[in-house]
Amino acid sequence: MDIRQQIHEMKLSAPEMAASSIVRRNRALALMAEALEENREKIFSANERDMAAAQEAGVAPTVQKRLRYDEGKLADGIEGLRQLQELEDPVGRVLLARELDEGLVLKRITCPIGVIGVIFEARPDALVQISSLCIKSGNCAVLKGGRETANTNRVLFELIRSAVAKAGLPDTALLQAELHSEIDELLQCDEDVDLLIPRGSNEFVRYIMDHTRIPVMGHSAGVCHVYVDRDADLDMAVRVVVDAKTQYPAVCNAAETLLVDEPVAEEFLPRVAAALAERGARLRGTQEVADLVAAANLSSDVPAVEVMADDEFSREYGDLVMGCKVVDGVKKAVSHINRYGSHHTDAIVTRNGVSAEYFMQMVDSAGVYRNCSTRFADGFRYGFGAEVGISTGKLHARGPVGLDGLVTYKYRLVGEGHVVADYASGEREFRYREL
Amino acid sequence: MDIRQQIHEMKLSAPEMAASSIVRRNRALALMAEALEENREKIFSANERDMAAAQEAGVAPTVQKRLRYDEGKLADGIEGLRQLQELEDPVGRVLLARELDEGLVLKRITCPIGVIGVIFEARPDALVQISSLCIKSGNCAVLKGGRETANTNRVLFELIRSAVAKAGLPDTALLQAELHSEIDELLQCDEDVDLLIPRGSNEFVRYIMDHTRIPVMGHSAGVCHVYVDRDADLDMAVRVVVDAKTQYPAVCNAAETLLVDEPVAEEFLPRVAAALAERGARLRGTQEVADLVAAANLSSDVPAVEVMADDEFSREYGDLVMGCKVVDGVKKAVSHINRYGSHHTDAIVTRNGVSAEYFMQMVDSAGVYRNCSTRFADGFRYGFGAEVGISTGKLHARGPVGLDGLVTYKYRLVGEGHVVADYASGEREFRYREL
Repeated sequence: MDIRQQIHEMKLSAPEMAASSIVRRNRALALMAEALEENREKIFSANERDMAAAQEAGVAPTVQKRLRYDEGKLADGIEGLRQLQELEDPVGRVLLARELDEGLVLKRITCPIGVIGVIFEARPDALVQISSLCIKSGNCAVLKGGRETANTNRVLFELIRSAVAKAGLPDTALLQAELHSEIDELLQCDEDVDLLIPRGSNEFVRYIMDHTRIPVMGHSAGVCHVYVDRDADLDMAVRVVVDAKTQYPAVCNAAETLLVDEPVAEEFLPRVAAALAERGARLRGTQEVADLVAAANLSSDVPAVEVMADDEFSREYGDLVMGCKVVDGVKKAVSHINRYGSHHTDAIVTRNGVSAEYFMQMVDSAGVYRNCSTRFADGFRYGFGAEVGISTGKLHARGPVGLDGLVTYKYRLVGEGHVVADYASGEREFRYREL
Repeated sequence: MDIRQQIHEMKLSAPEMAASSIVRRNRALALMAEALEENREKIFSANERDMAAAQEAGVAPTVQKRLRYDEGKLADGIEGLRQLQELEDPVGRVLLARELDEGLVLKRITCPIGVIGVIFEARPDALVQISSLCIKSGNCAVLKGGRETANTNRVLFELIRSAVAKAGLPDTALLQAELHSEIDELLQCDEDVDLLIPRGSNEFVRYIMDHTRIPVMGHSAGVCHVYVDRDADLDMAVRVVVDAKTQYPAVCNAAETLLVDEPVAEEFLPRVAAALAERGARLRGTQEVADLVAAANLSSDVPAVEVMADDEFSREYGDLVMGCKVVDGVKKAVSHINRYGSHHTDAIVTRNGVSAEYFMQMVDSAGVYRNCSTRFADGFRYGFGAEVGISTGKLHARGPVGLDGLVTYKYRLVGEGHVVADYASGEREFRYREL
């Protein structure tokens, strides 16, 4: 059976999956955790094969770190599954209950989306996380992971699939796509797949969007900003900028651009340049930034600011480099962010409530922060239990997407033979009453 | 300034519109109502010109009815504006408030989507409705109405725009596109337009989806079903079917297909065929349906059932014709609906709670109804005040879309210099507390 037929079979079983009890779905998560625990050696040895191949292929050490599935990641995965079981059922929540007229009751009730296709980078822990979120939310899922961890993925997927079947859920609820060519087949399945979640580079997400009719939830870039306002506590600002840039520079919620308010630029820029240099990071910036840092005669350990052009401010470095500009006040900062940013997460450091409110209101991003690091933009840190990704789109789900983003709703209307003609003729009238 | 530049200007003013107070937005609605009232003659005379042109062009009478903007529609529009002012502000609602740790507070707060492009059929009342919903929800909107009512649209739009400006909202908040070629330009504005809502034929909506990167919210078809179960009250079933098919056959929530459970088919089919015939409607169906109706020797006023093929069951008649099939039980009915339906609204008529629950759980549609007509699927009838359309997609908004569907949310995080490094090092721990 080719993958398109398999996905069609999955679609047919989606209503059964959607109707499954939370007891059964949680049981599947518990069995997944058990299976991971019992098969640790098998998993690690599969991962060893992937790691050896990666080393041979000369994969960069930072990337290799993501491919590895070790004791720590296994423990995190099992702990994640435990926490997920404790979360409330996202399915069957009553969002609205209203009597439209005597004996005619409307309810809006959450239900699973149906069939979700997730295409993710080579990270075995992502496979565990994503499949468990889909199961918990009553969805079926087609999973396509990065080929660099094909061996690890295969072992993990088989353990997960058999746990799901053992819990009494449809055995067509999960499907693993292994061939790269199957991505294009998946993109064609707009009759059967309800949502695609691509994770990866901007180019990749863009490719997906341009080649499918299936709705796509994904983030296109992480160009996050920290704006240091004239009324900032500058010590706090240094700490926030250093954390936002250097705590984990490769991820999307790391800051790429520092905006500094004009009145504090002269004092702040040399301090932040020095603090960043201590963590191995350097500034690129406008001529003005370069001049202000140079004028401070910092130690030779602090690299000079490389001068950059304005049109580079949309760049996502993903590295220990930060763009920098002096702006005159919070309004200019907001304009810059809305123009060059990616609507992901942007922070202001200030003690001024008016400026903060203006910033948080006017910046058109999924996360608007005051006096804290952009690195907090994450489903775990928000207390969602886990996340399938971070959405920079505005529809359906925005920001870190947890279980809530994997459900939709239905309207249930129950009457006693009610017909519209009676209301059109004026014989009856709607009498709304919230229940 | 061409339309793409104008849309870009609109995008720049979207945060200001989003930040506007509900007092001001309601004021705009009140001024709109006043302007409509005061300029009734001007509106009617513009509409007369459109009607005369339509008549000359030989536009069908049923379509002409939609083009007309008369006393009744004006009164409905003004009443709609009054009701809309009374609805709660959809912007600024706190969906989640959680302390992540001491002094670090996360809130999820609703906010407008930003810039919405609405392409709608030639119905002047739709222009009033859609623009007022966008204003109420703090969005900017590009409106493109059908060219058959170009004169009426122009007058209405100018009244609405000046009311909005008079209320102190940005005068770039609304824009009317008049040329058909501007649709394609609008589709290119994926940097500036956040959402497209196309209304019209399936082919048109499909065209839009295939030619833009902007997210699209629209319904692709209205193939609604009524399933008459073996445990139905057959009198009720006749009334529901007749209403669902004949009360307004041209609209998307009218039923296109009647499914009848095998044990009651012999009794029910002749009765419903006769009742439909009384309202000028006729059945098409499988050979079995034709035979069962023929066997009843109904009066010659009841047309014979035209035999149809299975692959025609996805057809949207929009007319006084109804497809019909005998199925063996609720499970078969659900399979048929999920396969041939359009995930819009489907009803079961039954006294059996188990069958009803199975149907409502397993049918994968925006509306799942028991013992009432599919014609209730409508934002006004649901008590939403108004609707911008009905979504058969599952993401963001499903079913009739009112104000709720025109907002998204932002995460606001306020700290006191909190950085992620402290949590990564174990120096601090998240202590979640709902507020």
